[in-house]
Amino acid sequence: MFEKYFSERIKNTPSSFIREILKVTQNPEIISFAGGLPNPISFPQEELKVSMNRIAEMYGAKIYQYSTTLGLDSLRQYIADRYKKIWNMNITIDNVIITTGSQQALDLIGKVFINKGDNVMVEKPSYLGLIQSFCVYEANFVTTKLNDDGLDIEDLRNTLKTHNPKLAYLIPNFQNPTGLTYTQENRKKVFEEIKDKDMLLIQDDPYGELRFEEGERIPYIGLNQTEKNLYLGSFSKIVTPGMRLGYIIANKEIIKMLETAKQAADLHSNIFGQYLISDYLYNNDLDKHIEKIKALYKSQANAMVSAMEEFFPSNVKFTRPKGGMFTWVTLEEGKDVMKLFDKAIQRQVAFVPGHPFYVNPINVNTLRLNYTNADSDTIKTGIKRLAEALKEI
Amino acid sequence: MFEKYFSERIKNTPSSFIREILKVTQNPEIISFAGGLPNPISFPQEELKVSMNRIAEMYGAKIYQYSTTLGLDSLRQYIADRYKKIWNMNITIDNVIITTGSQQALDLIGKVFINKGDNVMVEKPSYLGLIQSFCVYEANFVTTKLNDDGLDIEDLRNTLKTHNPKLAYLIPNFQNPTGLTYTQENRKKVFEEIKDKDMLLIQDDPYGELRFEEGERIPYIGLNQTEKNLYLGSFSKIVTPGMRLGYIIANKEIIKMLETAKQAADLHSNIFGQYLISDYLYNNDLDKHIEKIKALYKSQANAMVSAMEEFFPSNVKFTRPKGGMFTWVTLEEGKDVMKLFDKAIQRQVAFVPGHPFYVNPINVNTLRLNYTNADSDTIKTGIKRLAEALKEI
Repeated sequence: MFEKYFSERIKNTPSSFIREILKVTQNPEIISFAGGLPNPISFPQEELKVSMNRIAEMYGAKIYQYSTTLGLDSLRQYIADRYKKIWNMNITIDNVIITTGSQQALDLIGKVFINKGDNVMVEKPSYLGLIQSFCVYEANFVTTKLNDDGLDIEDLRNTLKTHNPKLAYLIPNFQNPTGLTYTQENRKKVFEEIKDKDMLLIQDDPYGELRFEEGERIPYIGLNQTEKNLYLGSFSKIVTPGMRLGYIIANKEIIKMLETAKQAADLHSNIFGQYLISDYLYNNDLDKHIEKIKALYKSQANAMVSAMEEFFPSNVKFTRPKGGMFTWVTLEEGKDVMKLFDKAIQRQVAFVPGHPFYVNPINVNTLRLNYTNADSDTIKTGIKRLAEALKEI
Repeated sequence: MFEKYFSERIKNTPSSFIREILKVTQNPEIISFAGGLPNPISFPQEELKVSMNRIAEMYGAKIYQYSTTLGLDSLRQYIADRYKKIWNMNITIDNVIITTGSQQALDLIGKVFINKGDNVMVEKPSYLGLIQSFCVYEANFVTTKLNDDGLDIEDLRNTLKTHNPKLAYLIPNFQNPTGLTYTQENRKKVFEEIKDKDMLLIQDDPYGELRFEEGERIPYIGLNQTEKNLYLGSFSKIVTPGMRLGYIIANKEIIKMLETAKQAADLHSNIFGQYLISDYLYNNDLDKHIEKIKALYKSQANAMVSAMEEFFPSNVKFTRPKGGMFTWVTLEEGKDVMKLFDKAIQRQVAFVPGHPFYVNPINVNTLRLNYTNADSDTIKTGIKRLAEALKEI
């Protein structure tokens, strides 16, 4: 009835595949590897309860009043300080804007940079929320293949040459959906290719803090070497996602435009949540808390990889993540993952078929598995079920 | 340096004038009638503190986890029930989507309905946040004059005939910026004009609950007579704005599209805040709380109107609001309100010049005054200062 009123942009925006799947997986008998939920054990509930009562005492009405678009100064300061400490970045709070989760960061970037038809480079496969978000701004996606060590440099060169993208969106650490991480060498090569191009680079990093296997943090692509980088971060995976708090770090001129976009989008992010998270961060040891999450996710990831090694046929490939929340499974060439999905649901195990992670999903034989929201025994049972389903396609 | 990367949409979006003014008014010596802040006395702080501890006990990790895009069911149910009760609307929670404040409702509506160049009808003057928000989607604004009793019907007829707008955006109760309310008769006439047109009507109603003068609530335009209405509401002015919780009530088909737009915008609104406000609403008497706010605002509005009557020259006109947060002042034809603004700042009183409320601000001789965020004595002092400034232009 309302079809004629809807905008072209929204008609071309995919509704979230995952959220459709979640409806199928409401059945509590189903073991779901479909979502991307942090393990609730990782939320510092007791500490947050202390903080919420403290901010109510300390700040009174301020935690309920309208506030500034850029976000709470103390929270922006914490973020600036942390990035200065870890990455030696030369930034102040003027380089930081708080967003309503990382998803809003993507929306604001779309608002600020994308004209209809602008070329935007993404990994193949890429984060479905980004594809959805930039669809709204009618971006033209161009892709670069993702290998085990990062971007395929040959493919990157071709993409840059052929399409001259205005923006690139990359997730260099424990990528969603593949779980892959760009090596230091790959990052250097990528930067060599892009540094003289007329292009801004967005590095989305919700999982970077969650490295549970040996090895150090690897610096961002072009870190401290260019003003054309935007860095996205989030408290969703290390404190709580329900508060919807993420941020963008960028050149001040860009932050100013993002501020205008955010005024138009939601005026400002929930200020209670900003006071709460800020109070939590200044009164607790975030790194110690993250260690607990990492230990948990390490055991869950190991449980999943071991079970796949034990039960999956050898022609099924999968990534072995060193951090983050996902592993990416590739079936034999020619297999239809939707067929597997139907069989899997019959056997009461769910996952996300690869489709929503591609700009043009055709002949999809890949799928994403999440391991953070089930215990190790459940993971083993679920993978066994999936292995049975694999025999039926 | 980044100019070439910015989108056309954002280059044409005005940054918020008010937020610029707020920087001028940081000086505590300045009496500010510029903002649109609820009086902090109106926040039910003690009750919210009880609620936050209760939800932490009752729901545990759920108040921190990812949640659904449409919003918390209990909160949507409360809204549906309230509108059913007050307006006899035939709706369920499927007709309700929670938004990150009413400002996000505007952004989502822009995403879902506006193609570049689509005609959107707004009041003259209109809410600056709407103008900003729809600018991002490159709407073409057309205006209809606002009179003391509502829309100018002759002008409405012309606008509809000449421009055939796809959307109309109206604030029928205690309008921002004018404080005016459409009479019942005017609403009926407006509906007669629009009902057969190919147009959706958005009625934004953040202030409707705040009627502090005699009289009953006046039904929405076309209430229960059309599926082409979208109703916007908010908890910002009756509970707390800092939580950023608003909502849209509409046909289910429209809600479904808004859901896709919201997935792309921020996945979902802060879930802690939704549990908190929901718990507050179910465990307290909202209407009783609203009575307190209304008594407060009534005395503040009266203080402002009385002071204007006493001190302003007779060629300065102003509205006498029966509710809401604002009054609208019109200077003599030909006077420049920016000149008054400069003089007023020198005398340490601030307001919002009319400019940002117009689509094409030229020869602006109007200004908005807010009375909710200062006590009656301060209001009187501020109006006296403004009267002095008026003598100097």
